[in-house]
Amino acid sequence: MAKVYVTRKVQFNAAHRLHNPEKSDEWNRRTFGKCNSPNWHGHNYTLEVTVVGDPDPETGYVIDLGDLKKLVNEKVVSKVDHANLNLDVDFMEGVLPSTENFVIAIWNELEDHIPSGQLHSLRLRETDNNSAEYRGE
Amino acid sequence: MAKVYVTRKVQFNAAHRLHNPEKSDEWNRRTFGKCNSPNWHGHNYTLEVTVVGDPDPETGYVIDLGDLKKLVNEKVVSKVDHANLNLDVDFMEGVLPSTENFVIAIWNELEDHIPSGQLHSLRLRETDNNSAEYRGE
Amino acid sequence: MAKVYVTRKVQFNAAHRLHNPEKSDEWNRRTFGKCNSPNWHGHNYTLEVTVVGDPDPETGYVIDLGDLKKLVNEKVVSKVDHANLNLDVDFMEGVLPSTENFVIAIWNELEDHIPSGQLHSLRLRETDNNSAEYRGE
Amino acid sequence: MAKVYVTRKVQFNAAHRLHNPEKSDEWNRRTFGKCNSPNWHGHNYTLEVTVVGDPDPETGYVIDLGDLKKLVNEKVVSKVDHANLNLDVDFMEGVLPSTENFVIAIWNELEDHIPSGQLHSLRLRETDNNSAEYRGE
Amino acid sequence: MAKVYVTRKVQFNAAHRLHNPEKSDEWNRRTFGKCNSPNWHGHNYTLEVTVVGDPDPETGYVIDLGDLKKLVNEKVVSKVDHANLNLDVDFMEGVLPSTENFVIAIWNELEDHIPSGQLHSLRLRETDNNSAEYRGE
Amino acid sequence: MAKVYVTRKVQFNAAHRLHNPEKSDEWNRRTFGKCNSPNWHGHNYTLEVTVVGDPDPETGYVIDLGDLKKLVNEKVVSKVDHANLNLDVDFMEGVLPSTENFVIAIWNELEDHIPSGQLHSLRLRETDNNSAEYRGE
Repeated sequence: MAKVYVTRKVQFNAAHRLHNPEKSDEWNRRTFGKCNSPNWHGHNYTLEVTVVGDPDPETGYVIDLGDLKKLVNEKVVSKVDHANLNLDVDFMEGVLPSTENFVIAIWNELEDHIPSGQLHSLRLRETDNNSAEYRGE
Repeated sequence: MAKVYVTRKVQFNAAHRLHNPEKSDEWNRRTFGKCNSPNWHGHNYTLEVTVVGDPDPETGYVIDLGDLKKLVNEKVVSKVDHANLNLDVDFMEGVLPSTENFVIAIWNELEDHIPSGQLHSLRLRETDNNSAEYRGE
Repeated sequence: MAKVYVTRKVQFNAAHRLHNPEKSDEWNRRTFGKCNSPNWHGHNYTLEVTVVGDPDPETGYVIDLGDLKKLVNEKVVSKVDHANLNLDVDFMEGVLPSTENFVIAIWNELEDHIPSGQLHSLRLRETDNNSAEYRGE
Repeated sequence: MAKVYVTRKVQFNAAHRLHNPEKSDEWNRRTFGKCNSPNWHGHNYTLEVTVVGDPDPETGYVIDLGDLKKLVNEKVVSKVDHANLNLDVDFMEGVLPSTENFVIAIWNELEDHIPSGQLHSLRLRETDNNSAEYRGE
Repeated sequence: MAKVYVTRKVQFNAAHRLHNPEKSDEWNRRTFGKCNSPNWHGHNYTLEVTVVGDPDPETGYVIDLGDLKKLVNEKVVSKVDHANLNLDVDFMEGVLPSTENFVIAIWNELEDHIPSGQLHSLRLRETDNNSAEYRGE
Repeated sequence: MAKVYVTRKVQFNAAHRLHNPEKSDEWNRRTFGKCNSPNWHGHNYTLEVTVVGDPDPETGYVIDLGDLKKLVNEKVVSKVDHANLNLDVDFMEGVLPSTENFVIAIWNELEDHIPSGQLHSLRLRETDNNSAEYRGE
């Protein structure tokens, strides 16, 4: 037996705004700066989905990465691509869309649907310089 | 004399929507697909500004790229970063924010302000796969 | 009027071998070295397709990059992806698949089918370090 | 004492085909899709080799990365570069060349030869979007 | 509670030379090769700083990455950017500037100053091919 | 006949300092800022060499990129890699090592030695954000 970590990368483009509606506008401006900009801004997000498991003896696959891509597209990308994370996405309702909260919310969407192997980690890149990783801990 | 093309890259994050207000919603949906999504989406834009000229004999510079960065930040990045291209940007008023129209509008903002040398071209990348270049022709 | 150069990047994976069947095996080995390896090798090719034109006043597009992607997929990617360039590709029959010859052959496939604007250049990257560009000259 | 993880990246180009000879052609086509394409396809593979250890007090090195590169070239790259993974590589004989199986096979080639420190992990990238990591577990 | 790993990347350009002054010139040349070159050479270094913690319920942040950037700039980048690692940097005095020793020294500068969360790891890239990671172990 | 532009990328690491010895220290500090830092700094330079010509009917090559790499290594990389551009490089003697002046000097080294085809352009990247291109004009 041999544990291999396989990763599939997907991309999508979304708008968002960091704003906590339970706080004052002044608090939001001071806390989030330009990320609180009222008319939204956006990103080319990159999501790396890592699944761990033993390669299947017949296929050599931990998981068929084509199937994984289809699953991630259905459960995540189709809902967030060209969407507004604050307004349009069912699984982000009531969630402040920081990279941290967003990657946890994506984990919750995917966790029960990985057809083989086991979801190991998600890395979400908001820009070339900023990213967040969640491992279900 | 020797013509050298120097390039400075800058980045910014913005929201936008492709929508022609003189056309019907149905036309806009059919023409722009998900890029017409009503609540906006966004991108990590990359802008490459190329200036051509002879290196100055005393400095070896066609243009001080630090000065060029300051100029581009003042005239462009400060107005479009974390902004909504359809709603917030003076030089995009009345302009449908396709990559093509956006790069021409940026050219018009920069053209008269290059302190030395001559603006040669602008390349604007909207995603890893899509870009537009304008050379003032 | 304003000429804008828009670029769409696509990727595909193919096998090939540099071998001139009109020459001896010895000549081929000496000329092409490991690129002549008998059982093939392969690459993750990247193709950048650049179309030039005036943005349409109604859409802001030189060309709908989604339509361009569909065209390039139909005429090129569907034929070369996961294929053997020496054995499987109709438009490469009798063509030694150097990056240079390959990019010219792709140009010939695309040239007459660009639905609007004008094909300006193709850049084909074989590796991070090696590429060839053709402009129809 | 301080554990540092040092990584050296190498690249190579190879052809392969996903095909399980103990199964029918129909099973292989259904299971592997275009990756089962009969005349091979190929990739620009990237391999990241990570060694962990305490930096040597005299050199500051966990391992001389030049020596590590030589070792990886001798044991792996010289055998797989411009080769066919199904036909040409001794250590892949009888192994279905999925990224998962390939990275485990490379581990087995390198494990006993790391001159200092300890092999920690191997990450093998088949494309920009797909990779597999093995840590000897 | 949910542990998220957030990463901020920064860049700087520095000169250095691998040379152990307690050893002979001959030993240094033999051990470090061209990295011992007497008049220095340099790199575009990339540093990835990873902090782990629970996202704050009010901000969604493990740590404000803008604050983290300011801290890393103050404690590290302002001292090493456009500097000579062997001659100019207080926290590198007496340290042979291998990537391994350098990343440990940066850890020691940052460890006590992370305003929230906990420093998890630092990855320092010297070139596209070579990097070192330290996790405080 | 068909003109194809082929490009080979090479990399090297060097130290330098922007300093005009005919000017005062004060002028140099004011003009070059931190690039005038007395104890040098350095970069991972990337050089893209583009040669234009008709592919040879027998080889499909404008130029053998392996031969081109050897030439560039002999004439340029072997002299500048792990060197100090102000002190160690014969063809940079008396030249202020701005990216602009450096790329022109490299052109002069290569121009007469391209074994087939014609040198078209050189692009020298000093950082991810700054580059200079020279086309022999």
